[in-house]
Amino acid sequence: MLGARCLFRALRFCSSVPCPRHKPSSKLSVRDALRSQNTSGERVKVQGWIRSVRSQKEVLFLHVNDGSSLESLQVVTDSSFDSKELVFGSSVEVQGQLVKSPSKRQNVELKAEKIEVIGNCDAKAFPIKYKERHPLEYLRKYPHLRCRTNVLGSILRIRSEATAAIHSFFKPSSKIKVPEENFFNVPAFLTVSGQLHLEVMSGAFTQVFTFGPTFRAENSQSRRHLAEFYMVEAEICFAENLQNLMQVIEDLFKATTMIILSNCPEDVELCHKFIAPGHKDRLEHMLKNNFLIISYMEAIEILKKASQNFTFTPEVWGVDLQTEHEKYLVKHCGNIPVFVTNYPLALKPFYMRDNEDGPQHTVAAVDLLVPVVGELFGGSLREERYHILEQRLARLGLTEVYQWYLDLRRFGSVPHGGFGMGFERYLQCILGIDNIKDVIPFPRFTHSCIL
Amino acid sequence: MLGARCLFRALRFCSSVPCPRHKPSSKLSVRDALRSQNTSGERVKVQGWIRSVRSQKEVLFLHVNDGSSLESLQVVTDSSFDSKELVFGSSVEVQGQLVKSPSKRQNVELKAEKIEVIGNCDAKAFPIKYKERHPLEYLRKYPHLRCRTNVLGSILRIRSEATAAIHSFFKPSSKIKVPEENFFNVPAFLTVSGQLHLEVMSGAFTQVFTFGPTFRAENSQSRRHLAEFYMVEAEICFAENLQNLMQVIEDLFKATTMIILSNCPEDVELCHKFIAPGHKDRLEHMLKNNFLIISYMEAIEILKKASQNFTFTPEVWGVDLQTEHEKYLVKHCGNIPVFVTNYPLALKPFYMRDNEDGPQHTVAAVDLLVPVVGELFGGSLREERYHILEQRLARLGLTEVYQWYLDLRRFGSVPHGGFGMGFERYLQCILGIDNIKDVIPFPRFTHSCIL
Repeated sequence: MLGARCLFRALRFCSSVPCPRHKPSSKLSVRDALRSQNTSGERVKVQGWIRSVRSQKEVLFLHVNDGSSLESLQVVTDSSFDSKELVFGSSVEVQGQLVKSPSKRQNVELKAEKIEVIGNCDAKAFPIKYKERHPLEYLRKYPHLRCRTNVLGSILRIRSEATAAIHSFFKPSSKIKVPEENFFNVPAFLTVSGQLHLEVMSGAFTQVFTFGPTFRAENSQSRRHLAEFYMVEAEICFAENLQNLMQVIEDLFKATTMIILSNCPEDVELCHKFIAPGHKDRLEHMLKNNFLIISYMEAIEILKKASQNFTFTPEVWGVDLQTEHEKYLVKHCGNIPVFVTNYPLALKPFYMRDNEDGPQHTVAAVDLLVPVVGELFGGSLREERYHILEQRLARLGLTEVYQWYLDLRRFGSVPHGGFGMGFERYLQCILGIDNIKDVIPFPRFTHSCIL
Repeated sequence: MLGARCLFRALRFCSSVPCPRHKPSSKLSVRDALRSQNTSGERVKVQGWIRSVRSQKEVLFLHVNDGSSLESLQVVTDSSFDSKELVFGSSVEVQGQLVKSPSKRQNVELKAEKIEVIGNCDAKAFPIKYKERHPLEYLRKYPHLRCRTNVLGSILRIRSEATAAIHSFFKPSSKIKVPEENFFNVPAFLTVSGQLHLEVMSGAFTQVFTFGPTFRAENSQSRRHLAEFYMVEAEICFAENLQNLMQVIEDLFKATTMIILSNCPEDVELCHKFIAPGHKDRLEHMLKNNFLIISYMEAIEILKKASQNFTFTPEVWGVDLQTEHEKYLVKHCGNIPVFVTNYPLALKPFYMRDNEDGPQHTVAAVDLLVPVVGELFGGSLREERYHILEQRLARLGLTEVYQWYLDLRRFGSVPHGGFGMGFERYLQCILGIDNIKDVIPFPRFTHSCIL
């Protein structure tokens, strides 16, 4: 390292005096710097936050992260650069040369010629401590700062990637060749949230989707409920049976997950390694098997025979499934996601399609139950037959309020169906994260709206 | 046409009896059918709504549309197929052969072998009348049905394309080669709405954006305000000056518009032809010129010298610009979008960066004014200096409420800035649409929430 040290001194001198021989440094993200093929001394500028400082006798090592990747960029410089301001959490701008690293830990490192502290960090007051692995519950108290940790950084990058993957599933960019098996091969339409409104749109566009925030005043302190969550909803015209919907749901789950695994391998690995050990295998198991299908009636039979003691006894046909039942059913099905179909009409909203199947009257509804969270998707065929819908609305005294909805069946009605997926629950399911508050930037729930 | 007629009869017979020789028809969208290269009699199935019916002596022509494109697919069949149910607005499923059309009006037509009416349309009650060009104000009364018209169909397809283009501007798919000039070359992050929350995220990720619904209880009946609108917001770390922000704003406007013009030419043409004649040239003029930059002070000088009579006299420095002023300034600048910079501190929120420029105290704010709507973007550098921010919050009595926001400046603060763009106003601006209620699926505004 002696040669390197001498070089540092020479460069340091250079950096303190304007150095007209040099081209201006090009600005690089940490991610791009780490992936750079050009390590023959390209002059670059990197900006970010210090994640670690290690001072040796003559050399100073910093790790700088800017959120573009889990891995930080190693910055190497003369120890005389060291200062009290170069601490964990402070923001810096580093200029220097990108070179091949002599260490096996990384391919590339940045030989600093100039390090400028942009913003100091009051380390004593900073709730995130150097080299400490804080529990997720602790970090939840600092919604404005927790994104500075490795684990939240990873979760939020995965969330961003999942968002993009869902958009591209429904609306492949025209620049990308659409895979044959992609269901949504006509332009899908992004609209405001709400299934009934999607149905309006599906009266003119045959496949529509929406993805946005949804608000529910649920008075629940559970680990799978929020007052504000994100929902993906799709509505498909000319859907003839639940099988059509289940195919899209299974494709959406698997295609989105494959894109995330392929584009964010390090971030997913961090979650699977430190938060949910063993979950990698469980996820692979979900992806390689066909999802199962059972009817609500079969589900009740399975629950009745269960040796487990439930808080809510599932012995009555016509009672809704509780989270404990959902989780039992998934386990019973070998931890493979399972569709439960044909629920009692009395349990479900007026718009679900009547199966007209005799005494145990059901509707063409479907839920997908998955490991970790239980219910992930809910959907149904919609009642497209004017007279049946009219009768049901009349019985509920809702005819007037929903005249516009009845209109959709008067003017060129089509069989159709759709579903919704809770986006945060999806992230919980693939990452194995127990609490929904850890997969959304700013969780809002009952009696809590910190930010 | 005689040969064709005989063929129809033969085929009709075939369709009424199961016909095992035929492969099952593959389902195609109207858009894909119109673009099909395979017109040597490929057997297909198309589903949609009837847009026109023309019955000749021996041949029946239908136009079927499914929302996937402005153009409908011509269906040709034996006039004996005609029935009272085949009317404007009803939904149908048509099976037949895709062939080259003998007419010059279209490349492809569908020789029907089987036409099934899926849902009837009560033409008398249907508020949308055959061959009538309804005014936009009339259609606004039927938010649940207006998407069945050509014009709303076009606007909503453009809206969908614009949404995708904005996402791809900020977060290019990893499958697409990122153009060199793309500013957001690190993974951008989609989060909940709200600039202050974006600033939290920009404390860990250097470039972040969000795109979603925003709610304002503005008691305004104007043609450019809604109670619920969509907003694109971005926050950029290490932004050094307003020039950095203005460059991203201009790139975003131009890149998004170019993608829309390239991907939806027919839909845009419809708007420019029937709703806003002359707007095509105005838009080209905006795209080919560099946006202009004037300061707030220069803007006031221009307004003072104006010969126009304003409702609000703009003679006092320190007064906010009104819509009439914004529109005048754009016209004064030759209908080129114009950035107005450095507004009086007293007019702007506490988080905007103090220019510390003496008696006429300004902040580093910027608005972009454009034809049709006036203000389209608003942004600023943010006050990243702890002590200045603390003083301003103290003066407003807000220190306690915004302690979390101050924290962001205590722990590795960086210079940063950002902006927001009203998505509906953007659509108004590029399409020349006068009323904001026509560019959103379900407009919600003061005293009106029909759906």
